[in-house]
Amino acid sequence: MAKRNGSGPATAESMASKQRDISVSEFFLKNRHLLGFDSPRRALLTAVKEAVDNSLDACEEGGILPEIAVELEQTAETRFRVTITDNGPGIVKNQIPKIFAKLLYGSKFHRLRMSRGQQGIGISAAGMYGQLTTGAATRILSRIKGAHTAHSMAVQIDTRQNKPAILSDTEQDWLPMFQPVNAEGQPEGEPVVSRHGTSVSIEMEAAYQRGRQSVDEFVKQCAIVNPHLSLHYRMTLLTKAESGKQKAEKGAAEVSTSAITPPPSTISVSYIRAIKLMPKIPDEILPHPHGVELGMLMQMLKDTESRTVRSALSSDFSRVSAQTALDICERAGIEPKTNPTRIAHQQSEALYKAIQGTKLMRPPTDCLSPIGEAQILAGLQKELKADFFTAVTREPAVYRGNPFQIEIGLAYARPQENEGLGNEEPVRVMRFANRVPLLYQGGACAMTKAVVGVNWKSYGLAQPKDALPLGPVVMLVHMASVWVPFTSESKDAIAGYGEIIDELTLGLQECGRRLSVFLHKRHHELEAARKRSYIEMYIPHLALGLKDILKLSDKEEDKVVTDLKRMLEKTHLDV
Amino acid sequence: MAKRNGSGPATAESMASKQRDISVSEFFLKNRHLLGFDSPRRALLTAVKEAVDNSLDACEEGGILPEIAVELEQTAETRFRVTITDNGPGIVKNQIPKIFAKLLYGSKFHRLRMSRGQQGIGISAAGMYGQLTTGAATRILSRIKGAHTAHSMAVQIDTRQNKPAILSDTEQDWLPMFQPVNAEGQPEGEPVVSRHGTSVSIEMEAAYQRGRQSVDEFVKQCAIVNPHLSLHYRMTLLTKAESGKQKAEKGAAEVSTSAITPPPSTISVSYIRAIKLMPKIPDEILPHPHGVELGMLMQMLKDTESRTVRSALSSDFSRVSAQTALDICERAGIEPKTNPTRIAHQQSEALYKAIQGTKLMRPPTDCLSPIGEAQILAGLQKELKADFFTAVTREPAVYRGNPFQIEIGLAYARPQENEGLGNEEPVRVMRFANRVPLLYQGGACAMTKAVVGVNWKSYGLAQPKDALPLGPVVMLVHMASVWVPFTSESKDAIAGYGEIIDELTLGLQECGRRLSVFLHKRHHELEAARKRSYIEMYIPHLALGLKDILKLSDKEEDKVVTDLKRMLEKTHLDV
Repeated sequence: MAKRNGSGPATAESMASKQRDISVSEFFLKNRHLLGFDSPRRALLTAVKEAVDNSLDACEEGGILPEIAVELEQTAETRFRVTITDNGPGIVKNQIPKIFAKLLYGSKFHRLRMSRGQQGIGISAAGMYGQLTTGAATRILSRIKGAHTAHSMAVQIDTRQNKPAILSDTEQDWLPMFQPVNAEGQPEGEPVVSRHGTSVSIEMEAAYQRGRQSVDEFVKQCAIVNPHLSLHYRMTLLTKAESGKQKAEKGAAEVSTSAITPPPSTISVSYIRAIKLMPKIPDEILPHPHGVELGMLMQMLKDTESRTVRSALSSDFSRVSAQTALDICERAGIEPKTNPTRIAHQQSEALYKAIQGTKLMRPPTDCLSPIGEAQILAGLQKELKADFFTAVTREPAVYRGNPFQIEIGLAYARPQENEGLGNEEPVRVMRFANRVPLLYQGGACAMTKAVVGVNWKSYGLAQPKDALPLGPVVMLVHMASVWVPFTSESKDAIAGYGEIIDELTLGLQECGRRLSVFLHKRHHELEAARKRSYIEMYIPHLALGLKDILKLSDKEEDKVVTDLKRMLEKTHLDV
Repeated sequence: MAKRNGSGPATAESMASKQRDISVSEFFLKNRHLLGFDSPRRALLTAVKEAVDNSLDACEEGGILPEIAVELEQTAETRFRVTITDNGPGIVKNQIPKIFAKLLYGSKFHRLRMSRGQQGIGISAAGMYGQLTTGAATRILSRIKGAHTAHSMAVQIDTRQNKPAILSDTEQDWLPMFQPVNAEGQPEGEPVVSRHGTSVSIEMEAAYQRGRQSVDEFVKQCAIVNPHLSLHYRMTLLTKAESGKQKAEKGAAEVSTSAITPPPSTISVSYIRAIKLMPKIPDEILPHPHGVELGMLMQMLKDTESRTVRSALSSDFSRVSAQTALDICERAGIEPKTNPTRIAHQQSEALYKAIQGTKLMRPPTDCLSPIGEAQILAGLQKELKADFFTAVTREPAVYRGNPFQIEIGLAYARPQENEGLGNEEPVRVMRFANRVPLLYQGGACAMTKAVVGVNWKSYGLAQPKDALPLGPVVMLVHMASVWVPFTSESKDAIAGYGEIIDELTLGLQECGRRLSVFLHKRHHELEAARKRSYIEMYIPHLALGLKDILKLSDKEEDKVVTDLKRMLEKTHLDV
């Protein structure tokens, strides 16, 4: 067996000869668990999530009510083809290879504006994972507004260089078409045809499994927090015979011999939009001075197009007026007309301290687009049978200079009509960041921590120590921000900044108080009903007694019963 | 306030114009919590850890017994200068800028061999964090073997391009010198002078705090698992007066008016090596075929220098002999002399399946360098007062084709002589990966999960449900591997692969059984001692009684007492 190993201790020179660049694709390929591709099941969800995020962002930026089709098709025992099609504005041809086969490429990283995607990694990483596990290319079909044909491309990522390789590139006819289905999976209503859109298809090693962390759950939760979205979901598993054939091909011994082929196991469901109103397109904002660190300030002063420090301060930052800029310069002992580049090198620290010591308005919040209380209620009511619903949208707040906004929805469900909910079960927490469902790593998330941290006993729910409260309750927790601080690149859990935990807690407590009023009232009503039924049970006996004593006729007895009942109904039964 | 926002919905063309590259430095700067720089306190530890990892790796590769100085110097209220100096082989001049000011550059990523560093990110990230928070450059001084002078360089990272910028570059005289100190921080013994070495200095926003997650703890644990290392640690805090002055400069109101300046708070301690033997330099290995995925196989076939598939298989992989390579080709239906590049494109999947279906020896384990049971015991005994020590080094095992090895040390300490340990306290788990202490995210780590998963009640320790056992016990857990699967790039916790958890569990159980024998024996001895003292208490009364009954003289009474005691000592007191 050959080894590449040298012999003897290394010297500075021999070590230098081994140093080399590591491409960002190689890095993430080896560390793909950082991106959410650590197991076949999770990989399937992550790929769908990244593609749907991109589609929703593109539709909303393009001002188009989103229509998205998610298709999962099992192609071998451990393989799926994942196809996401949208009616978005489409992608111009020369951008397709980079967007789908280059990590760290995108439009959302360098701006401060709320969106689902942030880093320019997700969809390329999904393609790279597919390539690693199946050798297959990412296939894209895209038609832009006004174009006669669609581009069809197959791309792969050259991981050594983090560059796209184009395997095929043709023009073809295409119209994105979406066929709604009913609850039985049968076509229902007219198909929706769009003049533009994008479809991406990736084949990858994957596993499908139902449950709380499944694609089924993801698309359902997507529909809840995006009431303006129509989403058509179809999942097809191989039949046992097909799967057996695949196994036989793989060299395994087991072959299905059943003569009758059962139909393929499928799921087919359409979530039709509840409202035809687009969410407000959030504004892009400039960085707030109090969220900018010294090194970043220096970089901004070097990069500015302004000719003076004063104008750089007022035009590159939010909440700095010309007068405030003057005040800051004065406080820092800097001539306001100095060239910003010079300041970057010599007096940046004085300027930094002056900025930190200046009172400023909090950052603007037009950059956020919360779901809204009414929409949250509508979303929950569509999906859950419950007796009580409430929702709170908090005022925007700020962490590290980044505006954010917390929303909470709460439903007290009927356990018998909702699977997995019960008086003895922990409440269910549905987490969302910028309208994207978060299904993994709940335990590490600030949202879960905030729920655990609230004293739910005072609102009428049982709660074991340091744990989620118990009861047939569903909580929806949403954070909207220009920059969501995820604890890892797989974007599953939110980091526990103090300001974020505080806002979450206040929102949860507000919902808790309302729940408490409901539970209290319901308790009274149940008690009253119990007493009433108790008395009602005795009315006939009472009437019979009266009949005997007063020698009433049968008719008079009936009247007594009726009168007593009426009396009972009129009486306010205080418990 | 100016906004960069365009107006109206975006089109495919307007969106294309906003797409751009994101440099890996920009990415990690914005996501620096992924690298362990999310709080000032943790940043200090992470910087020290990355620098010490590099120094230890360099010394060991160079066959040099490591001598390392770690200096933390507070320079302002929220700032520290971190300086790490080693006696390693030094760094050749043209490599210095890239090693210290470019992310994803290094020698360890592309090889399969056990080392502390893996990714070529750590030390550059520390420098980038310093630059962001203080604007200062990373300063490096390095002298290589045989050179007359040392290179002195100041470098920064151009985050837009992930490229180093050299701010200064001079030659100067320098000899790395290490002065051991005693427990009082006073110089003791001769200073050690080396003809070569590297010193790196970074100024950064940081906070110092004692405790389990401090630099103090890190250097101490480093010394425990690296008994061949001499480490000199010095930490200097500003005096209150100096700190007050800094505050006043920052524009804060509070100024220290105390006339008497207290001496600066310092820590100064040397950990001198316990053994002069270098750990075995681990071999580099080739990838094991069962750990290689389809996409990686294709890449390897494209890259190989071999001219035939058969020779590519036997020379680029471990555990594939010429005969095995032939068998694999046959099974895949591939002509063994085919050009590997052709296979990469056409028949790679058949080849992949054939490899998966072929039995192969497990990967070689010369690539691992465990600490060893004797060294673990020595390390624990140096640091802890305990009545019982044990250690287990497991045989190497394999996950995803990567060899790894688990080691466990366990000490049953005297609570009164070890702070923080007690019968009612959870046991303390010290975690290590490739001899590097892991101080953060214990809850997310496979090592903690394995400890919780063992049934410690059967070994004599109390254990609440789903929690660490209780008792004055310290456990040392070490994983050595060519590739440690960390859950995040900050390298704090190990992912819970089944094979890893299994090995951890077996090692812990073995230590548990030994602990159980000790506790059982000690219980017997304590019981015996209790009975003995009980009986001894009554001997004089017994003798007095005998004296009265038998009319003994005082002398005879004394003899009775002596005889009874002797009898007692001889008797085996069965409890």
